[in-house]
Amino acid sequence: MSKVVIALDPPPKAEIEKWVRERVDYLDELASSFKVGLPLVLRTGVHRLRDLFSVSSKPLIADLKLADIGDIMAYVVEALADAGVSAVISHAFVGRRGALDVLVRKSEELGIKPVLVVSMSHPGSTEFIDKHLSEFVNMALELRVWGVVAPATRREVISRVRELAGSELRIFSPGVGAQGAEPGSAICCGADYEIVGRAVTNSPNPREALERIIYEQERRVRECRS
Amino acid sequence: MSKVVIALDPPPKAEIEKWVRERVDYLDELASSFKVGLPLVLRTGVHRLRDLFSVSSKPLIADLKLADIGDIMAYVVEALADAGVSAVISHAFVGRRGALDVLVRKSEELGIKPVLVVSMSHPGSTEFIDKHLSEFVNMALELRVWGVVAPATRREVISRVRELAGSELRIFSPGVGAQGAEPGSAICCGADYEIVGRAVTNSPNPREALERIIYEQERRVRECRS
Repeated sequence: MSKVVIALDPPPKAEIEKWVRERVDYLDELASSFKVGLPLVLRTGVHRLRDLFSVSSKPLIADLKLADIGDIMAYVVEALADAGVSAVISHAFVGRRGALDVLVRKSEELGIKPVLVVSMSHPGSTEFIDKHLSEFVNMALELRVWGVVAPATRREVISRVRELAGSELRIFSPGVGAQGAEPGSAICCGADYEIVGRAVTNSPNPREALERIIYEQERRVRECRS
Repeated sequence: MSKVVIALDPPPKAEIEKWVRERVDYLDELASSFKVGLPLVLRTGVHRLRDLFSVSSKPLIADLKLADIGDIMAYVVEALADAGVSAVISHAFVGRRGALDVLVRKSEELGIKPVLVVSMSHPGSTEFIDKHLSEFVNMALELRVWGVVAPATRREVISRVRELAGSELRIFSPGVGAQGAEPGSAICCGADYEIVGRAVTNSPNPREALERIIYEQERRVRECRS
């Protein structure tokens, strides 16, 4: 099983459903899971996800970057559970009391795995978010969430998250491919999965592009571990 | 024109479209604007908003609490503009570079008004968000956004935001009604609009409930200003 999560972010003008179905079809065998973001789900409506991913055998992660009060996040998680989603990405920043406490409880109840963003890939992440990195990781450990998100483009952040988390918490790293991080580089710093989007999904041959990325990832990981 | 924004958050089991249409119909004359949140838009799909609010003469605010990288937020704003939305609520904490910079530019281009969350009503807001309150308000001023969101349930926060913002920035205050803040109390502390949800929308007679809240709001504001 590969360590690649495929981010399905259709270009704004794409015929979304066709675009998604084709890529799920090409990539399902090789991907570890699929991730959809807010623009896609807002356009299709959450109820379309079950049908869109009906041919997929892999988990679906809803990367909604939730950041609301607990009640609202709980409503969203209910809708995601109805749609067959396996995991949801939320921000650590909203805090625990009346927000993540509620999200985690509702997610457990419905069998959805919560994942918390502890750092992001854009430069503005250092303005506020990254200042709380260690607090966020500690909170993620206390809440016993499934995993955290930290950017492949800033490897020192991943190393720090792994150091803080010990062997707990899966680390998901976006930014491999089009955003510049090399396949395998985040895993070498302690990540568990690398999230790849456009480098695969916008390729004329997505399956071949994913095979190449998996090959690169495995080669680099063998090297850094030898 | 009243100073009440109606938050349309349908209960999870409601027949959403009917629920929304009825309330828009009853409340349009008296509301200053309507606000929809993520659970509603995820369920209906963003493309349904134009039709759902076709009988409304008031602006529609999409309270998605965006907190993503700039490109993703820009895609969302495009979808909202297509759907006839007037304003979008985003989090301040994602930071400026590569996030809010992009959101503000795209929003201006499409005629959508950006509003930033600088504090929230749940207890967890003090864990991380509120520590940056003055930085968030200063950033909102620099970015020349349309307004900010601060909770009616914590009046000292609203007073502080007004003090920091001077006469710039509209302040929107959720938490009036079911969450406990009295109508008019946030305006007395410097807010421009009070956001009311369940106290009106779940009332057996929503229009009468809104009339009562507007009456209370005006009475309290007259008192505090006299």
